[in-house]
Order: sequence, then structure tokens, then C-alpha cells
Amino acid sequence: MEIKTSTKFVAELVGTFGLVLFGCGAAAVAGVDTLAGLSGLGLLGISFAFGLAVVVFAYAIGGISGCHINPAITIAMLVNGKISASAAVVYIIAQLIGALLGAFVLQQVLGGQLAGFTPGEWAYGANGWGEGYQNEYGTAAAFLAEAVLTFLFLFVIFGATSKWGNGTMAGLAIGFTLVLIHLVAIPITGTSVNPARSFGPAVFAGGAALSQLWLFIIAPIVGAVAAAFVWRALAPKE
Amino acid sequence: MEIKTSTKFVAELVGTFGLVLFGCGAAAVAGVDTLAGLSGLGLLGISFAFGLAVVVFAYAIGGISGCHINPAITIAMLVNGKISASAAVVYIIAQLIGALLGAFVLQQVLGGQLAGFTPGEWAYGANGWGEGYQNEYGTAAAFLAEAVLTFLFLFVIFGATSKWGNGTMAGLAIGFTLVLIHLVAIPITGTSVNPARSFGPAVFAGGAALSQLWLFIIAPIVGAVAAAFVWRALAPKE
Amino acid sequence: MEIKTSTKFVAELVGTFGLVLFGCGAAAVAGVDTLAGLSGLGLLGISFAFGLAVVVFAYAIGGISGCHINPAITIAMLVNGKISASAAVVYIIAQLIGALLGAFVLQQVLGGQLAGFTPGEWAYGANGWGEGYQNEYGTAAAFLAEAVLTFLFLFVIFGATSKWGNGTMAGLAIGFTLVLIHLVAIPITGTSVNPARSFGPAVFAGGAALSQLWLFIIAPIVGAVAAAFVWRALAPKE
Amino acid sequence: MEIKTSTKFVAELVGTFGLVLFGCGAAAVAGVDTLAGLSGLGLLGISFAFGLAVVVFAYAIGGISGCHINPAITIAMLVNGKISASAAVVYIIAQLIGALLGAFVLQQVLGGQLAGFTPGEWAYGANGWGEGYQNEYGTAAAFLAEAVLTFLFLFVIFGATSKWGNGTMAGLAIGFTLVLIHLVAIPITGTSVNPARSFGPAVFAGGAALSQLWLFIIAPIVGAVAAAFVWRALAPKE
Repeated sequence: MEIKTSTKFVAELVGTFGLVLFGCGAAAVAGVDTLAGLSGLGLLGISFAFGLAVVVFAYAIGGISGCHINPAITIAMLVNGKISASAAVVYIIAQLIGALLGAFVLQQVLGGQLAGFTPGEWAYGANGWGEGYQNEYGTAAAFLAEAVLTFLFLFVIFGATSKWGNGTMAGLAIGFTLVLIHLVAIPITGTSVNPARSFGPAVFAGGAALSQLWLFIIAPIVGAVAAAFVWRALAPKE
Repeated sequence: MEIKTSTKFVAELVGTFGLVLFGCGAAAVAGVDTLAGLSGLGLLGISFAFGLAVVVFAYAIGGISGCHINPAITIAMLVNGKISASAAVVYIIAQLIGALLGAFVLQQVLGGQLAGFTPGEWAYGANGWGEGYQNEYGTAAAFLAEAVLTFLFLFVIFGATSKWGNGTMAGLAIGFTLVLIHLVAIPITGTSVNPARSFGPAVFAGGAALSQLWLFIIAPIVGAVAAAFVWRALAPKE
Repeated sequence: MEIKTSTKFVAELVGTFGLVLFGCGAAAVAGVDTLAGLSGLGLLGISFAFGLAVVVFAYAIGGISGCHINPAITIAMLVNGKISASAAVVYIIAQLIGALLGAFVLQQVLGGQLAGFTPGEWAYGANGWGEGYQNEYGTAAAFLAEAVLTFLFLFVIFGATSKWGNGTMAGLAIGFTLVLIHLVAIPITGTSVNPARSFGPAVFAGGAALSQLWLFIIAPIVGAVAAAFVWRALAPKE
Repeated sequence: MEIKTSTKFVAELVGTFGLVLFGCGAAAVAGVDTLAGLSGLGLLGISFAFGLAVVVFAYAIGGISGCHINPAITIAMLVNGKISASAAVVYIIAQLIGALLGAFVLQQVLGGQLAGFTPGEWAYGANGWGEGYQNEYGTAAAFLAEAVLTFLFLFVIFGATSKWGNGTMAGLAIGFTLVLIHLVAIPITGTSVNPARSFGPAVFAGGAALSQLWLFIIAPIVGAVAAAFVWRALAPKE
């Protein structure tokens, strides 16, 4: 039986909601040391938060919507003919709404507590770069990192879900790839590779987070589309 | 051959015993720095302790009892007709006894050593909030976090075990979801999403842990039942 | 075709060699901070070292010998009739030799560098308790922790490899259980639950490590045999 | 349909590119503390970066090229007749080019920011030993660790992919073995067990990294070939 579009819409919305709440939530709530003397999550814990969120939703909603929860993935799938243009629009709207809701709940929970791995201008785990953001990498480094890492993300996604992949393990491999991407790029951009994940927190953080949003839309899409073309060349008839 | 209720009872009891001993034990025994100069588990290690405990019991007893080891899960399954009312009562009794036993063994092992991530009033890894507990979040934030995160927990559970899920990977996805929930919520409430897990330590810790127990019964059940209704709407005929 | 006993012997020997080299090696070489300003593995990293070692050998040699690499497991399997007495003797000899070789290579690599999570008297990741060892827990706490945690270890092993388990995921669940056991017990005993893993380092460390070896033989076997009896009651005809 | 050699070439190239960018990138970009007060990845996070990179490419390209992404593995497979000599040459060339590209992108992203777990002479995550490198282990310890750990790496690879292994889980087990190897050996050599992974950063770092490259070619190959012979003795007719 065909799965209804509304069901896929809800799946993508809840999945992206969860990705933002788990990933940005871990960063903003638990990234740094807590009062009780426990060490905070640090870069490793935040990386696992984003990556494992993809793992769990891959197995919860992968059979419903494919678990994109990322407009760059949806666009790459559109480029390689694995989703229709109209469905892609529905997916991306669901992802943006889910990300907004995730950032909203995070804002409500945090209240006045703005501890986190991102300074005030980039609250709620927003992405950024340059002066005042993490290790203050430049724009070129931020763009290069986001584009190349999204390329590798989609390369693994296409490979793990291809006829040469393993359907049981694909979700784990894809989520672990997002762990890896965060292991490298948090000090550079906070790590996006996902326009929706950047959109939600930026709307609530405003300021620099919002004015820098363009890079986290363009660079991931560039990397994702490049991977779509490479994979199409590798497996022309799939 | 039908599995006997007594076998399911033992499975739920041992599973909840293990969840409390591994999760609360890791928090109370190894959460902070040790004398030998090793860094303690911190928020990341405690999160893995609770989540991996669900992973391992999912594969050890999932085929026997379904590995609820959490009254909120049992109630959500009851709401969606996946367990009978009488079986649910047996499950919840087993879970409460198992949690008590886990906290008792922890108390015996710890003896006078009350090091841990929870201050004296909330010993043995008890959940709490407000003044003196971790980052001192308020009651509304505690309730919101527990309810929303339990909603996501049950959403993944229903999805991963549905006809669209993957039976082999469901246990891993569900346990990793509990890792994620802890990655966000330890500074807020110590993370419950499980009335039994809160019950065991609260009985032995007494004081504030016991007087705050109500929230860790109500909020997880609210979130779990909400997920049961959402999932019923998504997959009406399953 | 029947697998030869000599093949099983080599498998158990290499597996236990790897467990000691990875687990005790991680503890002794990389447990604490390094000169380059990197944070050391801490309790979390050491826990993963021991547990993931079981995961990888479960998939490398599980099909050959069952991957016991632990005399307490072999004895529990003997109690429940899953291995013959003569094979059990061969297994345990292989495990002891492998553990000795692992500790020997570790001693050669470390040379004079005795940094590690265990003080001098308990070098090479040896287990212990009491004055001068980690958080200085007493003998009763050490025995209780080792026996109860080995009980849970074997409970998961019997469950995950039973007719109700999942053959593909059993190795992961069993190894993750050893992660969990270490997440709780390193500050108490350094965590053994495995007489062979304690034997190897104790022989090279001598002193207190050797005189305390008895507990790490008796307590794990007590817990393992208890789990064998419980499981036999749960699944009488398996 | 036979997979084209050019497809395998691209797979090995991208896989090794990703291994170096994820592994060495995590070490050089995020290994130590960041400006925002977050704790860096430390030894545990770097270990996961290298190991999970093998996991994800195993599931992305394992069905295409076998996912060697390591000349020592390719040579061990050649020794046991699992790959032809001409294909082995193609693989190794792809691996070396991929590693160079990975180190090049890392150099571009880092720009002047040479923070990392390796001092200046060993920039970009290069391997080394002796005075000025990590804990300053000697040449014999470095060689012994690299050879023995590569032996265990290949032992798991042969076992997990043998008729006694589990095809679904082999990639996870093999990648986790690389996690384990790093958990032990980063303070000793930075951990190579892979001549290509050492080659890329050494070319860009020059100096000591380049003059010490020989050990990271010879020791891993010695360990890998030893494992090939042991496995051939264990499973003569496979």
C-alpha cells in the first residue's frame, strides 16, 4: 500500500524536530561543564548527539519517508531522480517547520539559561564562523568544509542505499557519517551540512546567525549535488 | 509456544534492575573524577550507560517480554492495544521491584561513598530539578523536557517496531534514543522518561528525590500517551 | 564440517590476547592525559576499549569458538551443558596463555613508561581494591560488584544467544554489556568479571595485584554460575 | 555484472580521502580544547574518528571494492590470493592519491591554524615517535605496537569476512577494531597501521613526519602479512 504524503510529511517534520532538539539541545544545554562538577559533553558528545539522531530516525521513519530530514539530501535525491519535485517541496517544508519547532522548544526549555557552545549571538546551537564564533575560521574555510563534508555525507548515503549496500546497516552508516562530520567541523562552523538544521536556531537567535544563514544553505547544496553527479557516473543504470 | 507470564515477569524485573544498576550506578560511582587522575564519565558517559543498557536488554529479553523496563512504555503499549491491562500490571510491578533492587545493590556497593553527579539529597542517581539540583532549571522546563523527550522516545519505539521498521536494528535505535535523551536532559532533570528508573533511587534517597517523584511519573506518561495517539493516526490499521 | 579443536584453541588464545592488549593497553598507555595536551581516555574510553574488544572478536571468532575469551563464561556454558568438560579445559588454557601474551606485549611496549590508571603496584591495568587502588572501595563492595555484574553479563549472554535472541546482534549486545560493566565498576575494582583478564597483568605486576587475584577468579565464577541457574529455570527445554 | 576497475578505483580513492579527512581532520581541527570552553575530542574522539570512518566506508563502498582504503590490507589480501597483483597496484595508487587529497583539503581548511594533537613538525595528524612526539616512545616500541596491532586488525578482518563471520556486521566489527587500535596507540605513534594514512599528511608536513614514514610502511605490512599466514593455517581450504 502506498504511504500517504501526509504521513511522510509528519515523519519528516518529527524527524527534523528531533534532530534539532537532540543535536542543538545537547550543544546548548549540556555542551559545557555543569554545576555538579560533571564534565560536559564537549565536541565528542555533541557530535554523537547529531549523528545518533540521524541513526534513530533512519530506523523510525526510514521506511516511511526515507528519513531525509535535510533539504540538501532531498535536493540530491531530486537531482538523481529518486524523488519527484512536488514531493521534494513537501519534504523541505516539513523539514523547515520541524526545525523551527525544535528550536522553539529548546528556547522554552532554556529560558534565561543561555549556556552553550555558541556565544550569545549564535544561541540555540546556531551555525556561524568568523570573529567571535568558536575558533574564528574564515569564510573560505567555512564554505570549503561545509561543501566537502556534505559531499562525503551524500557519497555515503548513495553508496549505503545502493544495490551494493546493506539495507540493514545503511541507517547506522549514514548517521555515523554525520558523527564524523561533526568530529571535524564544530570548531569551524558548528557543523551544518543541513540547511534546515541551521534555519531553525537562526530564526530564534537572529543577528549574526541569521545574516550568515546563506552559507549553510548554499555550501551543503553544492556538496550534495556534486555527490549526486559523481554517484550517477559511478552507477549509471541503477 | 506461548511464553509464560512468570518468565516475562523475571525478564522485566532483571532488565529494570540492570537499567538502574548500570545507569544510576555509572552516574553515582563513576560520574566525576576518580582518585587516580582519570577523568570521570561526565555527561557523555552517563548518557551511554542508560542508553546502552536499553540496547543490551532489548537483545537479551526483547524476544521474551518486549523489553519495556519502563512503565511509560507499558502504558503507551496498553493505549495502542499491544498489551493487555492485566499483563501491563504485571509488567509495571516487575519494573518497580527491579528498580528497587537495582538501587539497593547500588546503596550496598557505595556504602559511605556518596560521590556522584547528584548532590546528597538526590543520592543514587535520583532525578530532580530546582534549587540545588544540577543547573537549577525550573519546574516548567523540567516537565516540558520530560514530556517532549518521552514523546520522541515512544515515537521512535513505535516507528522502529512497526511494519516499516527493521526488526534487527530496532533495539539499537531505541537504546540510542535514550542516549540522545540523556545527552540533552541530564542538566535539567538528571533525565528520567521512566517512572520506575526514578522510583528506585528516590525510595533510598528520600527527601527531595521522593517529594519530586510525581513529575517523573506524570510527565513521561503524558509524553508517551501523546506519542501513542500520534502513531495511531499515522498507522491506523497496523 | 566440524571445526578442529586446535582452531578453536588459536581463536580463544588470540581473542583473549586482543582483549588484554586492547583493554589493559588502553588503560595503561592512554588512560590519563598525554604530553601533547590531549585529554586521555578516562573512564569512558577505557570502558569502550574492553567492551568493543568483545564486540570485534565476537564477529571475528564467534563462529569458530563462540568467543568466550573468559573462563567465567566457559564455566557457565559448562554448567548449562553447552560445552564439554574437556573442551572447557582447552578453552581456559588458551585464555590464560592469551592473557599472559597480551600483558607481555604491553610490558614490552611500555618499557619504563608506567603511566596508567593503576598505580605502580597494580601496573599493566591489573585489577584490585582497597587502600591505594582507585577510590579505595572495600573487599565486600569489590566482591558484590564483581559477582552481580558478572551475573548480568551472563544473563545477557544467555538471553542474546537463546532462541529468543537475534544472532546478528548478539555480539554487539554482549560487548556493549561489558562496556556497561566497566562504566560502573572501574573505580571499584578496575573491573574484571573475567579471571583470565585479571591473570595476565597480575603475573607481570606481581605484589598486590597477584595477592588479590583470588577475588577476580571466585566472584566472577559465582555470578556466572548463578546466571546459568536462573537461565536454566527460565528456558528449561532449550 | 562485473564492477569496473575504474569504479573500484574511485571508491578506494574517495574512501581513503574520507578516512584521512575525517581521522586526521578530527585530530588536527578538534583534538584539543576550543576557544568556546568546550572540551576537545581527546584520545577517545580521535579514535572514534578513524574507526567510524572505516565503518561508514565499509557500508558505502564495501560492495564495490571491498573497502581496503589501506595498502597493508590490500597486500594481505594479495598474499592470501583474494585480489590479483594488477588490481592491488590499482588499489594502492588510488589509496595514495586519496590520502594526498585528504591532507591537501585539510591544509586548505586549516590555513594558518596549526592547532592539533601533533606538534608543528608532525602537522596535519602525521604519525611519528621519539623526542617531541606525544609521549616520546622509542623506535622499538613504535615498531612493535604498529606490527602487533596491524596483526590484530587483519586477524579480525579475515575472521569477520570468512565463512564463519557475519556479512552484515563485518564492517562494524572491522571499524571498531580500528577504534580499539587507536585507543591504545595514539600516545605511541599517533596510530597508523595504514601506510596511505601516514603518507598523505607526511607529504604536506615534511620534516620528521617524512623521514619517519618508513616505519609506517614496513611495520603495518609485516603485521598484516603475518596475519595472512596465520589465517591461511586456520582456514586452509576457504
